[in-house]
Amino acid sequence: MITSQKHVGSQSISFPNPPSIASSACVVGKKEGDGPLRDSFDYINDDAYFGEKTWEKAESTMQKMTLNKALEKAALPLSAVEFIFAGDLLNQCIGSAFSLRDMNIPFFGLYGACSTMAESLALAAMTIDGGFADCTAAITSSHFCSAERQFRFPLEYGGQRTPTAQWTVTGSGAVILTSDGPGPYIKHVTCGKIVDQGIKDANNMGAAMTPAAYSTLSAHFNDLALKPSDYDLIVTGDLGMLGAGILVDFFRNDGIDLSHNYNDCGLMIYSREEQDVHAGGSGCGCSASVLSGYLLDGMRQGRWKNILFAATGALLSPTSTQQGESIPCICSAVSISTTK
Amino acid sequence: MITSQKHVGSQSISFPNPPSIASSACVVGKKEGDGPLRDSFDYINDDAYFGEKTWEKAESTMQKMTLNKALEKAALPLSAVEFIFAGDLLNQCIGSAFSLRDMNIPFFGLYGACSTMAESLALAAMTIDGGFADCTAAITSSHFCSAERQFRFPLEYGGQRTPTAQWTVTGSGAVILTSDGPGPYIKHVTCGKIVDQGIKDANNMGAAMTPAAYSTLSAHFNDLALKPSDYDLIVTGDLGMLGAGILVDFFRNDGIDLSHNYNDCGLMIYSREEQDVHAGGSGCGCSASVLSGYLLDGMRQGRWKNILFAATGALLSPTSTQQGESIPCICSAVSISTTK
Repeated sequence: MITSQKHVGSQSISFPNPPSIASSACVVGKKEGDGPLRDSFDYINDDAYFGEKTWEKAESTMQKMTLNKALEKAALPLSAVEFIFAGDLLNQCIGSAFSLRDMNIPFFGLYGACSTMAESLALAAMTIDGGFADCTAAITSSHFCSAERQFRFPLEYGGQRTPTAQWTVTGSGAVILTSDGPGPYIKHVTCGKIVDQGIKDANNMGAAMTPAAYSTLSAHFNDLALKPSDYDLIVTGDLGMLGAGILVDFFRNDGIDLSHNYNDCGLMIYSREEQDVHAGGSGCGCSASVLSGYLLDGMRQGRWKNILFAATGALLSPTSTQQGESIPCICSAVSISTTK
Repeated sequence: MITSQKHVGSQSISFPNPPSIASSACVVGKKEGDGPLRDSFDYINDDAYFGEKTWEKAESTMQKMTLNKALEKAALPLSAVEFIFAGDLLNQCIGSAFSLRDMNIPFFGLYGACSTMAESLALAAMTIDGGFADCTAAITSSHFCSAERQFRFPLEYGGQRTPTAQWTVTGSGAVILTSDGPGPYIKHVTCGKIVDQGIKDANNMGAAMTPAAYSTLSAHFNDLALKPSDYDLIVTGDLGMLGAGILVDFFRNDGIDLSHNYNDCGLMIYSREEQDVHAGGSGCGCSASVLSGYLLDGMRQGRWKNILFAATGALLSPTSTQQGESIPCICSAVSISTTK
């Protein structure tokens, strides 16, 4: 009989041997490179095609560049990665399948929409702490052009965007985990439950995802007997302007003040004043590139000691929207610390 | 420092405490119910809509029925499931997201195409053996009508099918795993690598997936120092008539005779003589419903003691095909035994 003492509370896991983040890397497009986090990206590509003939192939190439850069920074060969966890927004997750098809790494394909960076990190960390590997990787991506034409309109149509719409980040983030190392460490994960509060507006995904973020963050604090002030920074994935405000309101109703140490990757990656992104950034690549660059760099530089990274995803499809369905959402959270 | 002694060889995992399969269930459509495995299904629904207005909603309803049936057979409440691993073929995996949105279970979304039953079982088993849970679930589905109109043509078009084409199974399978129990047990898993041998014909996915099946099965035997004769039955997911024959040829070239104890779920679920399915069945629900019914029932009844279940998936999309790409494939294998 196994004792599952690592499973704490309803949906959290606490690692007795927290996996170490050996390295992380991020590659983004031009618009992201023009934003306030420009100095934190490993590579900014001005060509939306990344030298390929289509945007989908560009997304795969971007992912490949990101994984190679992360391995280079960790001074590890590709063959060191025992299992890789990856997914993206494209139908049938072709961004990941085509980026990894020549890599020769045992592969677990995921679909967590824009929560994929946290979901992949959670499983990559569980694989190490569970004793199944000493080195795993987590990677995801999104591309404005491939996402926009798949989920909304052909780019050539030039459709007008609503004020609540968010801008899909062209970006990829990769994290290499090892069983041993100087950190930062993944200490806990909180696995999300699907939450659907009946919101149907696919142009307001921040609002739709906020109840999922609230659910997972609340579970995280309850499960692990932690409070928001135990973190130097709590970041959600891509709630954007509207969602982030609603999240702060939700917690305020519980008597919890999130306003001092909370931010959202969708608000951090672009300048809303100068870059015309409406409610902020979104996409798997949004939280992935902000985590892999700005956040983990900041931890390594001593800016933050404890971060709660809560990536959010909307599990809808154009088909479900056309069929009048509301938007099921999920949020997975990963607690990262500079100390074990 | 964790020792990853559970990771054996290049891509296999051996469980020191093999998780027990507490129950399994399968729900299918009319055509599957007319086939040779009719007696092994828990429920056969003559209505392709499962009482819903669309085929996509029908697929979600079928998944829900399957999970509820599996829980009933295990005599476990929904709340006993600590983590669920699920995915399907629909864009953005809406089959799973909508089936599970009211279930209140911590959720990991997967995309492994038709290999999803093995991928989800692998991760569900790793979660238990890793000490993260005492009860997990793995579920997947496919639906002929939702898949056909997404991947090929509107059903109303009545497009002619090539001889190598396979028939997407309308079916769902669910497996409940527990840390303790009378078995059958999941003893090993072999995680697939993506294999792409340049095949571009999306109407011949059996042939495209065969090199992935060969890669994973070879790795399984090498990693764990096992040989095909150590299994009473080796089953692939949905290679179909062509792929299954090629797989036997591949192994014959290695001096290994697979012909005595090998079969393919895509060949088992339909009568090729009477049901006009061309090369056989396919879809996530194919291997999932055959495993959850016929195969696991057979193990419980003493027909087989050791089964190697190797589900195969083609990680293409209509977009990648339109862009002239070949088909990246994957195969994940799960070794199931009546003894620990």
